[in-house]
Amino acid sequence: MNLEAQLRRMLDRQAIEDLIHSYCECFDRNDPEGVGAVFTADAGTAYTPDTDNIRGAAMAAAVAVGLRDLFAATSHHISNIRIDFEGPDEARALSYVYAWHRYHGDAPDGYLWGRYRHRFTRTPAGWKISALRLEGAGTRDFHRERMHPIGRGAD
Amino acid sequence: MNLEAQLRRMLDRQAIEDLIHSYCECFDRNDPEGVGAVFTADAGTAYTPDTDNIRGAAMAAAVAVGLRDLFAATSHHISNIRIDFEGPDEARALSYVYAWHRYHGDAPDGYLWGRYRHRFTRTPAGWKISALRLEGAGTRDFHRERMHPIGRGAD
Amino acid sequence: MNLEAQLRRMLDRQAIEDLIHSYCECFDRNDPEGVGAVFTADAGTAYTPDTDNIRGAAMAAAVAVGLRDLFAATSHHISNIRIDFEGPDEARALSYVYAWHRYHGDAPDGYLWGRYRHRFTRTPAGWKISALRLEGAGTRDFHRERMHPIGRGAD
Repeated sequence: MNLEAQLRRMLDRQAIEDLIHSYCECFDRNDPEGVGAVFTADAGTAYTPDTDNIRGAAMAAAVAVGLRDLFAATSHHISNIRIDFEGPDEARALSYVYAWHRYHGDAPDGYLWGRYRHRFTRTPAGWKISALRLEGAGTRDFHRERMHPIGRGAD
Repeated sequence: MNLEAQLRRMLDRQAIEDLIHSYCECFDRNDPEGVGAVFTADAGTAYTPDTDNIRGAAMAAAVAVGLRDLFAATSHHISNIRIDFEGPDEARALSYVYAWHRYHGDAPDGYLWGRYRHRFTRTPAGWKISALRLEGAGTRDFHRERMHPIGRGAD
Repeated sequence: MNLEAQLRRMLDRQAIEDLIHSYCECFDRNDPEGVGAVFTADAGTAYTPDTDNIRGAAMAAAVAVGLRDLFAATSHHISNIRIDFEGPDEARALSYVYAWHRYHGDAPDGYLWGRYRHRFTRTPAGWKISALRLEGAGTRDFHRERMHPIGRGAD
């Protein structure tokens, strides 16, 4: 790959990282439309083994309920982002999320040490998330009993 | 923007991220002069609604007191950095901070899940912070009662 | 440094960051061989003042024991990465780690707010870690009593 192509790829990486951060920031600000805007309409998501998977087009309406009824506050801290390109307009990534949740009512704060497995596609409106799977390395006082596993060997 | 300008901008991003990290590292190492050195002299800051705002030129002296009297140890973990350029020599950023604090005495550890809203300006000595506002998504056992809000919708 | 050299350096930064993330991900997935693969064979490491230092060539075997016997789950969240190049093929970095540990048995979860001090070298197989020192700003319910200090001034 020549240097110009390498530079373009670095700009793509930056756009993709920004997309992950936008998802978190919109979620934490209780902006369901903003959460929905980072997905393609036909994006597939898998948040837990016990909840229905949500299409991108239905994301804003789906997260609005939890953002209103369940959470008093949340904070999704992203790190360890690793992006692999599968072509000029397709990429996937693994990232870590440390997520803190304060609930309505008197439940203790909930913690998730998780992973996002994303797929991204370049659209006429820029990079979008085309698939999201959330995995849990562990939780504490969390509102979900089970998470998709991270695939820890020898478990 | 041509590729050379894009590359220069990426180098600016890296310098700005390094400035945010330097602030944290100097704070956590109890290096008040290092904290002060990342600000312009006339930088404005807003840490909480209940504390006086501190100018950049007064930052080293101001933080030295807390670093000595209040904290036995701290750790400021930055993530989710989003930088917007408002010109070749001006930028602003939103970033997430997860901050852990151990106090002198027997108070429990304090936690902040927060946001930094920074402004940056390029000076003859490189990029500096020209404004800082700290916002709190939430806290636990923290030494401040109130934080500037993150602007969570529908609150 | 000309722009082409700057771009190559940015690609080196990305490769080095990916190496740090690979270390965490392999550790958290209980993949001792993957952990070992990020080190040079003669890499020196210093995890705590009370444990033997481990050479890179012995890393996979050494971490396999703890990953199997001590930890039920772990999550190592990296941030605040600052990389300095000391030549075209040598670099060092300071990074922050927030590490969560769930133990076998009924011990409470352990937390580390730490720092990695890494050295890196470019080998025929790409960048590798040639030295690692772990420092602790603080811990809670952690399986190690003492950590190398972060050098907090005025302590």
